[in-house]
Amino acid sequence: MGKNIESNLANTPHFNPLNPQEFRKQAHEMVDFIADYYQNIESYPVLSQVQPGYLRANLPQNAPSLPESLETSLEDVKNQIIPGMTHWLSPNFFAFFPSTVSTAGFLGEMLCTCFNSVGFNWIASPAATELEMLVIDWLADMLKLPKSFMFQGTGGGVIQNTTSEAILVTLIAARDKALDVDGSGNLNKLVVYASDQTHSTFAKACKMVGISPRNIRLIPTTIDAGFSLSPIQLKAAVEADMENGDHFHHDVDPIKLLAGVAKEHGMWVHVDAANAGSACICPEFRHHLNGVELVDSLSLSPHKWLLSGLDCCCLWVKNPTALVKALSTNPEYLRNKQSESDSVVDFKDWQVGTGRRFKSLRLWLIFRTYGVVNLQDHIRSDVGMAKIFEDFVRSDPRFEIVVPREFGLVCFRLNPDETFGSDYTELSNQKLLDWVNSTGRVYMTHTKVGGIYVLRFAVGATLTGDNHVVAAWKLIKEGADALLKTV
Amino acid sequence: MGKNIESNLANTPHFNPLNPQEFRKQAHEMVDFIADYYQNIESYPVLSQVQPGYLRANLPQNAPSLPESLETSLEDVKNQIIPGMTHWLSPNFFAFFPSTVSTAGFLGEMLCTCFNSVGFNWIASPAATELEMLVIDWLADMLKLPKSFMFQGTGGGVIQNTTSEAILVTLIAARDKALDVDGSGNLNKLVVYASDQTHSTFAKACKMVGISPRNIRLIPTTIDAGFSLSPIQLKAAVEADMENGDHFHHDVDPIKLLAGVAKEHGMWVHVDAANAGSACICPEFRHHLNGVELVDSLSLSPHKWLLSGLDCCCLWVKNPTALVKALSTNPEYLRNKQSESDSVVDFKDWQVGTGRRFKSLRLWLIFRTYGVVNLQDHIRSDVGMAKIFEDFVRSDPRFEIVVPREFGLVCFRLNPDETFGSDYTELSNQKLLDWVNSTGRVYMTHTKVGGIYVLRFAVGATLTGDNHVVAAWKLIKEGADALLKTV
Repeated sequence: MGKNIESNLANTPHFNPLNPQEFRKQAHEMVDFIADYYQNIESYPVLSQVQPGYLRANLPQNAPSLPESLETSLEDVKNQIIPGMTHWLSPNFFAFFPSTVSTAGFLGEMLCTCFNSVGFNWIASPAATELEMLVIDWLADMLKLPKSFMFQGTGGGVIQNTTSEAILVTLIAARDKALDVDGSGNLNKLVVYASDQTHSTFAKACKMVGISPRNIRLIPTTIDAGFSLSPIQLKAAVEADMENGDHFHHDVDPIKLLAGVAKEHGMWVHVDAANAGSACICPEFRHHLNGVELVDSLSLSPHKWLLSGLDCCCLWVKNPTALVKALSTNPEYLRNKQSESDSVVDFKDWQVGTGRRFKSLRLWLIFRTYGVVNLQDHIRSDVGMAKIFEDFVRSDPRFEIVVPREFGLVCFRLNPDETFGSDYTELSNQKLLDWVNSTGRVYMTHTKVGGIYVLRFAVGATLTGDNHVVAAWKLIKEGADALLKTV
Repeated sequence: MGKNIESNLANTPHFNPLNPQEFRKQAHEMVDFIADYYQNIESYPVLSQVQPGYLRANLPQNAPSLPESLETSLEDVKNQIIPGMTHWLSPNFFAFFPSTVSTAGFLGEMLCTCFNSVGFNWIASPAATELEMLVIDWLADMLKLPKSFMFQGTGGGVIQNTTSEAILVTLIAARDKALDVDGSGNLNKLVVYASDQTHSTFAKACKMVGISPRNIRLIPTTIDAGFSLSPIQLKAAVEADMENGDHFHHDVDPIKLLAGVAKEHGMWVHVDAANAGSACICPEFRHHLNGVELVDSLSLSPHKWLLSGLDCCCLWVKNPTALVKALSTNPEYLRNKQSESDSVVDFKDWQVGTGRRFKSLRLWLIFRTYGVVNLQDHIRSDVGMAKIFEDFVRSDPRFEIVVPREFGLVCFRLNPDETFGSDYTELSNQKLLDWVNSTGRVYMTHTKVGGIYVLRFAVGATLTGDNHVVAAWKLIKEGADALLKTV
């Protein structure tokens, strides 16, 4: 019967979605399309000016039954999609945070997509696991992390998608370590500490893992202390909780003194250095990580300042066993000799998901084809541009710097006349921001620090040069002129 | 002072990691590298034959200080990385599950990487949010989901990275809905139900969100019932718990009757159709989703069977409010008029992370440039190949089909002589599997169902054709011949 079936096999050609010739042709077309986009990027409004619902009104309501040409789709990208984009890669993008990219990161991503290896465990793609172990040690070395965070030492690291996931898995490991959890119910007694400047994702992660919002202590910070967390206040908060016999987890920003307080009480200390951490590859910024040898875990996102593009967050832990204990699975269909002999790392046990992409290729190409020297240059250049902008602000008495600048972010505001009160100041700044953004020539955002509404000028989009910073400042001044004239 | 600074700006060229000319040149090189890889893919052993630690021994121990050429890195990809890869795209890959890819998916990913838009909320990239809303409705329509799961109706969907994340966020929404949680401590009373065939990621997700392993009810299934979950057993388990006054969450496989039982008790019902769900775009398979109108949420991974490449899992919910309530954040720096007016979707509130990529571009290009007809053809072709393999197995009396085949997975085993006992049978199959995989010509894996060790032949890697299935079967027979001769 086998033979019959074999000889009867229909040899009719069927739909082949990965014909190498077609791939080659169309991928070359796409490269040119993208290179053209980069060349023309300044011609688009950086903040999209479309209205909610614009896209559905302009595209078909259902998937087509029959295939359409690639060209038709690319026309829609040009005419429908690009006009609705906020261009994060525009050199005039100063909003939120810069999410940096690079040719090397792009090429690494192409290779990652090419192989499409699903590296949940070692055997599923040894090279994917081993390259990740290598480059995460490389980056640890660039940051001068102690060996206790390196595979070459006693720890290790892993690429997560985003900071939120890095914090989530760390919280789970810390939670389970604190409880030695088996559902004993002590979850209600766990308390976490962070500065009130901590990213909202921290509170979200706490909620996700079942830590009650009642048990999150956001220690207040002040403008006078540059919004850094005070070890004295932390100690006081912890000791108040200790009287009630609670357990602790902890998340901090400036490190050494805080870690001291936390360690006294056996807490897990995590440092989220998502953005600024990357700067520590430069010797002159490395002191920001002083004390890191005292903490349990550290996360940093190369998709912010190390040119990798989204999404790539590195998490290092001193005690991988705690992470693996909290996150491991051992289904029969993934069992294999290498995993059972404990001679390999299975990264599925270091993250939320099972499947994972071969993202280390991006970092590997970035580190190799740019070298540490160029990456340092890139950090310094961004900081230099932020300084230029800061000096512009300081040179104009109508403006003030609200928070001392560190790295690439300048928090400033228009301060026209204090006698009109703080509501008036806030309104003026809102108006200025709206005006600037409505031009489509620059995109900035705002935040509040210590109750003060400030404008954020975040320097560092990959294509931004000094000339863009100069032009942005001119535009802001123009807005202020118009605004203060009307008033 | 402003003027001084402006005129003094150094105009020296600095490191530019996204020079469009260099990008164009190098990306074209990479396209050719990748197209060559696809053309030569059958020349590589599908399962890598390297030993743990092989890569570190062959690459530099630190990142270089100075840049190296792209060519040097590509040489290392060829000589060091590719030999250590398990080639998921090989047409001879029948292990785990097929993770399908396509030229259109690749091109969509290139565009996604190109824009690098960080679409946490609508304003950060309107097109990214709106295209995702559109294509997820398109896919819902292809699957004939009721309007209650569509943005065009009363529900909606979102692209998650993986099934694990889809299950995690759904569990959190269900948990918070059940508890109307504020840390009241009832978490210990929550119970979840699933079949014992459920993916291990489900138990992991429960643990992550703080549900005690004691409260996970894995309802036993049997080989006679084709390992499907019995509504009668589910009802019995639920009612036993009800006597103790517990709350419930639920996760099921076959739908209609089960949903009936669950709904009686107000449980959240989630259907994880990660792989097979995609087949429901074909009318002849759609009945597998019968009853879906009764459930609360559904997940399905186009990175498995809809050619998108990793990672792309679609999650639909009937009640987006429950998801958003559980996962929303509202930090000042992300506040904007459109979000506050509630006229837009902010996808950060539908997922774990804040940042997110513009992944819908992949699905959009796949749907448009292939059309529904070709996607159906592709599903049918894979199922057809699995049938061919199944017939081969049935035609050889030394083998047996252990689980009735559905879709593209054939679970079979060598059953040489039952008189030697089940341990002997298991060992024989292990030996056969090891032998087949050691050739590098085919890669299969195993699992256990109802305690029985079975070989899994998962058909559907994008490049697999009938000839590869025929060759794989010949190799397996060859292995069986040798094994049974030695015995």
